Amino acid sequence: MFSIRTRDPGSYARTGTLKLAHGEVRTPAFVPLATKAVVKTLEVKEAAALGFDMVLGNTFHLFLSPGHELIKQLGGLHRFQRWDRPIITDSGGFQVFSMGHGTVADEIKGRAAQSAGERSGAILSIEEEGVSFRSYLDGSTKFMGPETSMEVQAALGSDIALVFDECTPFHADREYTARSTERTHRWLDRCLKWHAQHGPEGQIVYGIVQGGTDEDLRRSSAQEVAAREALGGIAIGGSLGEDKAQMFEVVEWTIEELPEARPRHLLGIGEVDDLVRGVELGIDTFDCAMPTRIGRHGMALVPDPEKRWRVDLAKARWKEADEPLLEGCPCSACEAGYSRAYLHYLLRAKEQTAQRVLTLHNLAFLQRLMAELRDAVDEGRLAAVAAAVRSGAAPWELATARA
Amino acid sequence: MFSIRTRDPGSYARTGTLKLAHGEVRTPAFVPLATKAVVKTLEVKEAAALGFDMVLGNTFHLFLSPGHELIKQLGGLHRFQRWDRPIITDSGGFQVFSMGHGTVADEIKGRAAQSAGERSGAILSIEEEGVSFRSYLDGSTKFMGPETSMEVQAALGSDIALVFDECTPFHADREYTARSTERTHRWLDRCLKWHAQHGPEGQIVYGIVQGGTDEDLRRSSAQEVAAREALGGIAIGGSLGEDKAQMFEVVEWTIEELPEARPRHLLGIGEVDDLVRGVELGIDTFDCAMPTRIGRHGMALVPDPEKRWRVDLAKARWKEADEPLLEGCPCSACEAGYSRAYLHYLLRAKEQTAQRVLTLHNLAFLQRLMAELRDAVDEGRLAAVAAAVRSGAAPWELATARA
Repeated sequence: MFSIRTRDPGSYARTGTLKLAHGEVRTPAFVPLATKAVVKTLEVKEAAALGFDMVLGNTFHLFLSPGHELIKQLGGLHRFQRWDRPIITDSGGFQVFSMGHGTVADEIKGRAAQSAGERSGAILSIEEEGVSFRSYLDGSTKFMGPETSMEVQAALGSDIALVFDECTPFHADREYTARSTERTHRWLDRCLKWHAQHGPEGQIVYGIVQGGTDEDLRRSSAQEVAAREALGGIAIGGSLGEDKAQMFEVVEWTIEELPEARPRHLLGIGEVDDLVRGVELGIDTFDCAMPTRIGRHGMALVPDPEKRWRVDLAKARWKEADEPLLEGCPCSACEAGYSRAYLHYLLRAKEQTAQRVLTLHNLAFLQRLMAELRDAVDEGRLAAVAAAVRSGAAPWELATARA
Repeated sequence: MFSIRTRDPGSYARTGTLKLAHGEVRTPAFVPLATKAVVKTLEVKEAAALGFDMVLGNTFHLFLSPGHELIKQLGGLHRFQRWDRPIITDSGGFQVFSMGHGTVADEIKGRAAQSAGERSGAILSIEEEGVSFRSYLDGSTKFMGPETSMEVQAALGSDIALVFDECTPFHADREYTARSTERTHRWLDRCLKWHAQHGPEGQIVYGIVQGGTDEDLRRSSAQEVAAREALGGIAIGGSLGEDKAQMFEVVEWTIEELPEARPRHLLGIGEVDDLVRGVELGIDTFDCAMPTRIGRHGMALVPDPEKRWRVDLAKARWKEADEPLLEGCPCSACEAGYSRAYLHYLLRAKEQTAQRVLTLHNLAFLQRLMAELRDAVDEGRLAAVAAAVRSGAAPWELATARA
């Protein structure tokens, strides 16, 4: 199911292949979001044309609308969104809890851009059984617990289901985090029990490591999750700290406790430097709203570490700029040759086309980056390639990077 | 420049080729709108992939933003929007006057969907020299007259420039219409004078016939416009009446006064039945916001005369519909196989992708319709094909329609 091809001698990095019910995922891989059964501004099938093997759907949003029963009735999520490759579904835990907890974790993980509308829901209660909350769509009371989440994911028919967890926020104290993490482990077992009895054929389950930023809680959560042999893979979730240094310290503690043979997913992380560091730490798959979200906000990924790899085309400085989106970029959006002035104008005119073009560019940028990182691991050049990315090399310039 | 290939013996219809500075347009043709230098929800280049030879840009909107000087500085409208095929530019007259006049003409011509924002401007004065108005973007005072319009269109570098006219509304009385039409003719001469001195090489100018719905005013306007030998073609504008019967009566009066050798454009008309009738009346090119606009509003073109050839996918009745957008439709959007339930869901979720898919479908539908009408004229089958369209045949079913 998961086979490791090459191990990097200087880090935890590895390349491999994840064999899933709907096909193979070349790892390490970035997984674009198809949160609401669509990659925002694109058709889902365009993710394949961009070179992605898998997309991520969202249990919470699809549960609320159009409803998992309807999607099942229409043949499942693959058929609904016309995508015959692998799908991983988030469990809904993060979304349910992000309505009730503060936004600190969101900010750190770059997930703060959920619309105001999506935040107008509210948690009504968190019990051992699960969570009651108010739907952000119609205000009705909804309940989601481990079994609900697995039932929804079974109906969706995703290749990988994630267990239902509490995503503990950064500002939670140690005691809350400890209690929450223990409950998450009990929920993990309930998810596995439900899945063993009712899970659809071919669907595998990933556990989620929580534990906040306390080393002992993180390590013990990782050990607990790793101990469940039924899990097809392990995801790392929750608050990962207040800055990137702490985030990767937390990830490293976790990785050290995880069995090497099972695939690892890092939830909600996808900045350019984070992908490089994550690969070095042995992460196999990543998902993140960043490339699609910043595209809709007028930003394009560029190889500029000092500007967090992004340029804001809505800024007035691009009004008359006859330079391309990104010189030398081989993506289809750049190939069209639009000037920054044109994209700036379209953004100001609120023309959707700009958001689409930037989304295409940003996803292509990350896809090429991941492909180059895979090649680098396979060819023993990861250290040189990672250094080149960090010093501002473009993805298509990495093929020749050597120590 | 315009060559007629086949004349239909039973109507005014003809097929031909319009040779313009940036290429050829196969006529009769539908011309999609690229109002603000973009086909809404698409990249302009996608119009070529759909089979269109020409798009229509808008002088008024591009004058206000980003400004014709900037577009000229960036190499002209073709380069700005990365489209190397023909462009026709509307003169701005319709938009300037639609801020001041009522909306009756808009309703009849199906042009009522300009956003509230675009209507928040206002006409300050209409003088012999031209029109002063308030910009809908920033409230600043702007002026547009015949020379301004031609100067803007020269800067844009369109293949076909339209003369600046007053688009008299349906509710104007005969006296107002007569005076307005006479001024439009004086403006026509000022446009031609400016263009003779300053017009860019290769750009041709179309006059615009006005005259409202009074037969004598319409016919005399057509004669006046036709008398200007410098015009490369003639457009039919203004109020065409209160219903389709009157609209085509007005068009027929006009056609009877026009020289056969010059190409004719019908402004703002593009419903399915209107295209068929327009072709029968000898119209060579049409533009209309309908296919792109209704797509953004959740509607798809379907071969259903009783429903004005459209289906509204936002309606609740499609919530669970596992039927395709349009059975048998060979367009790329339909080829993807999305169910009406999926498109309904995307529309309700306010996902842009739905608007894009419907826009692609609607444009493909009209493009195929026009291609079939051209073939029908060339093969002497127009009467049968027109009857088939009117009785609900799909565009791809027309190739075999015979009397």
